[in-house]
Amino acid sequence: MVSEQIDPGTEDTSPTVRLDETVHQRVRLGVLTIANEARRVEFRFLQETMGLTAGNLSQHIRVLEEAGFVKVEKGLEGRRPRTWVVITRDGKSALRQEIAALKVLVDRFEGT
Amino acid sequence: MVSEQIDPGTEDTSPTVRLDETVHQRVRLGVLTIANEARRVEFRFLQETMGLTAGNLSQHIRVLEEAGFVKVEKGLEGRRPRTWVVITRDGKSALRQEIAALKVLVDRFEGT
Repeated sequence: MVSEQIDPGTEDTSPTVRLDETVHQRVRLGVLTIANEARRVEFRFLQETMGLTAGNLSQHIRVLEEAGFVKVEKGLEGRRPRTWVVITRDGKSALRQEIAALKVLVDRFEGT
Repeated sequence: MVSEQIDPGTEDTSPTVRLDETVHQRVRLGVLTIANEARRVEFRFLQETMGLTAGNLSQHIRVLEEAGFVKVEKGLEGRRPRTWVVITRDGKSALRQEIAALKVLVDRFEGT
């Protein structure tokens, strides 16, 4: 009997199996991409650049923090309280993996 | 007075603003990528390839259907009931836009 089943263990035809929701989600991918470009990035800057409410951005940053992909630093700039987001080594590595998976996906699309 | 504000209308520094959640979400991006490679693709094939429950896949296909990006066809193959997913013209166009946005993102990452 010939099996019609596809064994996901041996055939890897899923184009998005290598994408991790923690990093792939639109807002979080944006946060990591921007944070990757500087030593640290201000919360307000992220919020304005990405057009998000503070609450929405905070939620996504919490997810990234819990995954160990960013750290949050609070302090003063002059007299003003500031919050900065810093990408971690694990965050950089996760972003690099996501980008690699996206390149495979783009190549697959362009091959069709 | 120099404004520290970033105007999202004139400066486009958000790396993921062009990504549409409907298409970008991991499972749906996979479904569209696979559906784009054939005239139609069987529901069971998608489920097995992507390692999803029928319920989970159905939910994502409903989102794509409501956006007009796929159509669902039901019929028989021999005596067996089958469900196929067919990408629409709008679905192909949405996928093309997503891929273009991903390429910009990849280039931005690689430029850092």
